[in-house]
Amino acid sequence: MTPKLMKLPLKGIIPPMITPLLENKELDSKGLKLLIEHLIEGGVHGIFLLGTNGEGPSLDYRLRRQLIKEACKIVNHRILVLVGITDTSFNATVEMANYAKEMGADALVVAPPYYFPVTQHETIDYLKALIPTLPLPFLLYNIPSCTKVNLSVETVKKGKEMGAIGIKDSSGDMSLLYALIDEFKDTPDFSIIAGAELFLSDTILNGGHGAVAGGANCFPKLFVDLYEASLSRDLNKIAFLRDQLLKIHKTIYNVGDSPTKSIQAIKCVLSLKGICQDYMALPLSPLNTTHRNEIKGYLEEFEYSKKQRTGLKL
Amino acid sequence: MTPKLMKLPLKGIIPPMITPLLENKELDSKGLKLLIEHLIEGGVHGIFLLGTNGEGPSLDYRLRRQLIKEACKIVNHRILVLVGITDTSFNATVEMANYAKEMGADALVVAPPYYFPVTQHETIDYLKALIPTLPLPFLLYNIPSCTKVNLSVETVKKGKEMGAIGIKDSSGDMSLLYALIDEFKDTPDFSIIAGAELFLSDTILNGGHGAVAGGANCFPKLFVDLYEASLSRDLNKIAFLRDQLLKIHKTIYNVGDSPTKSIQAIKCVLSLKGICQDYMALPLSPLNTTHRNEIKGYLEEFEYSKKQRTGLKL
Amino acid sequence: MTPKLMKLPLKGIIPPMITPLLENKELDSKGLKLLIEHLIEGGVHGIFLLGTNGEGPSLDYRLRRQLIKEACKIVNHRILVLVGITDTSFNATVEMANYAKEMGADALVVAPPYYFPVTQHETIDYLKALIPTLPLPFLLYNIPSCTKVNLSVETVKKGKEMGAIGIKDSSGDMSLLYALIDEFKDTPDFSIIAGAELFLSDTILNGGHGAVAGGANCFPKLFVDLYEASLSRDLNKIAFLRDQLLKIHKTIYNVGDSPTKSIQAIKCVLSLKGICQDYMALPLSPLNTTHRNEIKGYLEEFEYSKKQRTGLKL
Amino acid sequence: MTPKLMKLPLKGIIPPMITPLLENKELDSKGLKLLIEHLIEGGVHGIFLLGTNGEGPSLDYRLRRQLIKEACKIVNHRILVLVGITDTSFNATVEMANYAKEMGADALVVAPPYYFPVTQHETIDYLKALIPTLPLPFLLYNIPSCTKVNLSVETVKKGKEMGAIGIKDSSGDMSLLYALIDEFKDTPDFSIIAGAELFLSDTILNGGHGAVAGGANCFPKLFVDLYEASLSRDLNKIAFLRDQLLKIHKTIYNVGDSPTKSIQAIKCVLSLKGICQDYMALPLSPLNTTHRNEIKGYLEEFEYSKKQRTGLKL
Repeated sequence: MTPKLMKLPLKGIIPPMITPLLENKELDSKGLKLLIEHLIEGGVHGIFLLGTNGEGPSLDYRLRRQLIKEACKIVNHRILVLVGITDTSFNATVEMANYAKEMGADALVVAPPYYFPVTQHETIDYLKALIPTLPLPFLLYNIPSCTKVNLSVETVKKGKEMGAIGIKDSSGDMSLLYALIDEFKDTPDFSIIAGAELFLSDTILNGGHGAVAGGANCFPKLFVDLYEASLSRDLNKIAFLRDQLLKIHKTIYNVGDSPTKSIQAIKCVLSLKGICQDYMALPLSPLNTTHRNEIKGYLEEFEYSKKQRTGLKL
Repeated sequence: MTPKLMKLPLKGIIPPMITPLLENKELDSKGLKLLIEHLIEGGVHGIFLLGTNGEGPSLDYRLRRQLIKEACKIVNHRILVLVGITDTSFNATVEMANYAKEMGADALVVAPPYYFPVTQHETIDYLKALIPTLPLPFLLYNIPSCTKVNLSVETVKKGKEMGAIGIKDSSGDMSLLYALIDEFKDTPDFSIIAGAELFLSDTILNGGHGAVAGGANCFPKLFVDLYEASLSRDLNKIAFLRDQLLKIHKTIYNVGDSPTKSIQAIKCVLSLKGICQDYMALPLSPLNTTHRNEIKGYLEEFEYSKKQRTGLKL
Repeated sequence: MTPKLMKLPLKGIIPPMITPLLENKELDSKGLKLLIEHLIEGGVHGIFLLGTNGEGPSLDYRLRRQLIKEACKIVNHRILVLVGITDTSFNATVEMANYAKEMGADALVVAPPYYFPVTQHETIDYLKALIPTLPLPFLLYNIPSCTKVNLSVETVKKGKEMGAIGIKDSSGDMSLLYALIDEFKDTPDFSIIAGAELFLSDTILNGGHGAVAGGANCFPKLFVDLYEASLSRDLNKIAFLRDQLLKIHKTIYNVGDSPTKSIQAIKCVLSLKGICQDYMALPLSPLNTTHRNEIKGYLEEFEYSKKQRTGLKL
Repeated sequence: MTPKLMKLPLKGIIPPMITPLLENKELDSKGLKLLIEHLIEGGVHGIFLLGTNGEGPSLDYRLRRQLIKEACKIVNHRILVLVGITDTSFNATVEMANYAKEMGADALVVAPPYYFPVTQHETIDYLKALIPTLPLPFLLYNIPSCTKVNLSVETVKKGKEMGAIGIKDSSGDMSLLYALIDEFKDTPDFSIIAGAELFLSDTILNGGHGAVAGGANCFPKLFVDLYEASLSRDLNKIAFLRDQLLKIHKTIYNVGDSPTKSIQAIKCVLSLKGICQDYMALPLSPLNTTHRNEIKGYLEEFEYSKKQRTGLKL
């Protein structure tokens, strides 16, 4: 049974929620509550737990379960809860799926296991074995920078035939995203969700359905506004809001030299906003003080310039 | 305390042992016993559990623990037991290390966590946090095809300073392997272990210490003989044995189109030899019947030509 | 002196013109004439000679010169003529630039030399030496799949400071394209030209200036219409025309297995249309008969479905 | 007719000779004479003109021809002269081949054209067209870092069938080099030449034939001695000489941050030795003063430690 909240195709802004941690790397339950309320207030349509921004694979199972349990309880069906279940162990994947269902999550997100380099064919075989065990609707998740396999249009079609309700594409390859939108344009129930947040308006204008935007952890209303402006095809408003987004990318996301600096930056901004702390699970680490101050400066400038603007409240 | 068996530098042929599985993906305890005896009989100097060939990351924790426990018991200190502990979760890594110690393993093998792409610097920070928690001597493990980070000579030096007893390099990059041998040539306790089995004789001739050779699962004596021929600098014997090895690579390892076809082939050969079955943990799968028959043909030809030879018993 | 035709920023649809060849690999002067008239009739704003689609680097200097001379004469200042001058030899690059000026070309297109892998810094040093010798306005050309260096925003800024009038980005990386548009949004004379034709409407809607679209060799009016629909922000018309384009990509451009199959397909379509033949300079080759027939079928279907449509003439 | 000097298989140390240039980027004929005499005195078996170290693709045709002419005249058949003819233009390639023959060169070296990314199949088709036009024996040249295509064993076999007398493999991939040696072990006339100089002794010990070693421009006797020690299987001497080589790699070749820093270093060492100047053809540039001084220090230390040694004269 598809949970009541969920209508297909899945749509809108679904932040890949970061996981608030304490200094001892336990779950920061207070931060979690503040973060979820911040996101709901910002108007997001769902949250995606235990994805890449959520540092899912870095957390032990106990913590992953605690997060699912507490987040589902806090959300209490006000918005959708999607749970990333991928693990290199098949059994652990299935167990997490069942736990998510039990705790009241709405859908699952499935990427290929991420240790071995695999072919499209092996990915399809994996999905063939996994999908019949899943107790909830699920999205496919394409993130080749972490999984080493770039799902082809053909593989996604196979996934759709086996029951997937959509694909979140974080390849960063707009040609693939457009090919996916085109492929499924006559399949209105299948969602094409952009993982690269700068592609949000292009995705919506050209027939896609939403974005799993890391930055929506910090600036949920900005993304929701951009989503709505895209839906209503208000090109001036889109231009204005994209400009804000590009500014964030050029400044806040561009501090330090880690390949995961945008995740560091998002946690840093949330800690500067007093929502949660910026502790991270190894192998990732919080930004150092210099970088934190740099982001602080960018954030103040960004917030200040926002206040100067009229007509549009982000 | 370094266990009694272990003398530094670690040396010799240490197969990255495949994990025998039943059709239901549980541990094949009978196969495990046969495989370990086959390896000990072949003269190997140790076994490495839960590496890439061992499909470590694909197995759930219960099965990983069962394997460690049963393997340590079967080996009963006749040869070294090394255990791969790497996991994307830091806590799970530490727990597996402690369990390995408890079960009587001799050493650990540590690769960087394999979900996020990380820098050398982040890898060093990860090791700084992990190493003080490790209850046993440990080797570093470089396998960029799976972990996405290629450990630099500088990073390995840092790992050595923090306590590593050696490095297993499976980058396939002979220049890196030679640079490592050169870097540590005045550090006689630090082992340089080749992960690419074709580089075994070069490694030994030029000052390295051994090989973690996947093929030694099937042909332990061939590798032990090649190791010893290399130690005694018997170039004719080396040439003869390398020739056998090259033949295996060109035939048996070259069936099918998966990036992990050599692992499939190794399990297939072991099943053809009646040692264990060739079930694999997803996302890997056994070779299909056509490919299996192809390998059967290659194996028969290989064994037959071996019988024809005199003077050298493999 | 900037030639009369050229107003900055450079705008519109500028096909990277293929080079019509005879069976003996000499220039097909008759085909050249037909092709240029076909393009001008289609409404393009300029042509770009000797780019990647033009197989520039594969042609000997004599043929490159002949092409420049004949094309400039045929065009006779009706539209802009841009000439790709990049060569691995610095002197040859300068000589071709001078020849293009002499023959009446309007602008040059400059990519980094393509043999050695180079850094951003080396690319900048190269431009520092080259630019003072150039007798005509010039665009930078980013095509990392051929040159192995992906021009950074910073490098393009340096190029602008040294006199570039724009950048043609064929990286296929929409994030870079958007970063470039954003970087130069307050520099109205600097053109951002998309090299990936599927990004044409996004480029224009978000502030860029045009496209060097290979497909415009075959379907110039389709691209000009899409450009104009984008300028006038007619989202319905854009959607309709992009759909045509996506269809071409899924069918005509998708035949065979060469990395350059879209160039083969473009020459094939032009030969099917009777404009010129599809001989190619080695190392590229025409499509074989099977593939040619496949494209023929796609083309007929495409043209037929075009006729069925009303209201929009492509 | 194979020139008299040349016996198959081609063997030994064949430096990819750097091209001595004056400040105005014209050929430094005096430096060329000194360099060739330095190499012949060092005992090399041939020289390879216009390769990657020779900056071949960066030189204009006039200069390439001048170099071939003057080098052939200076060498005067005392050692072999091989000429790299590859160009992105097919006609230019054939013309350079004919010119090399006319000037008395002994053999040609052929890499795939380096602008377009091509498949193995396209490479074979290119060779099928080119080879019948070649007036001299020729080696294949595998250098994927510059040409973007990594010749497979299968492609090299096809090249052999079409007449190639050997392959110079500069892929840096020892597994490929060993696969090539193995493939052609029963084809005694076909040469396997290592392009990565650190693999020289391994190549010879395992059945290969020589090395095109950039460092032999500076230290020809070191390489010739290592080649001979490898031929005579003198493992102690090999170890000693490899050690010198590793030292050069760790110091002299490791200055600056260009992907082509070893070529810069080689020209720098030659200028420090007073043989020729270190001007380079764009896009490459000489090392700056700081880096030059760094190399000067390494070189002095290297020469000094050489003097301290007894028993072995390099």
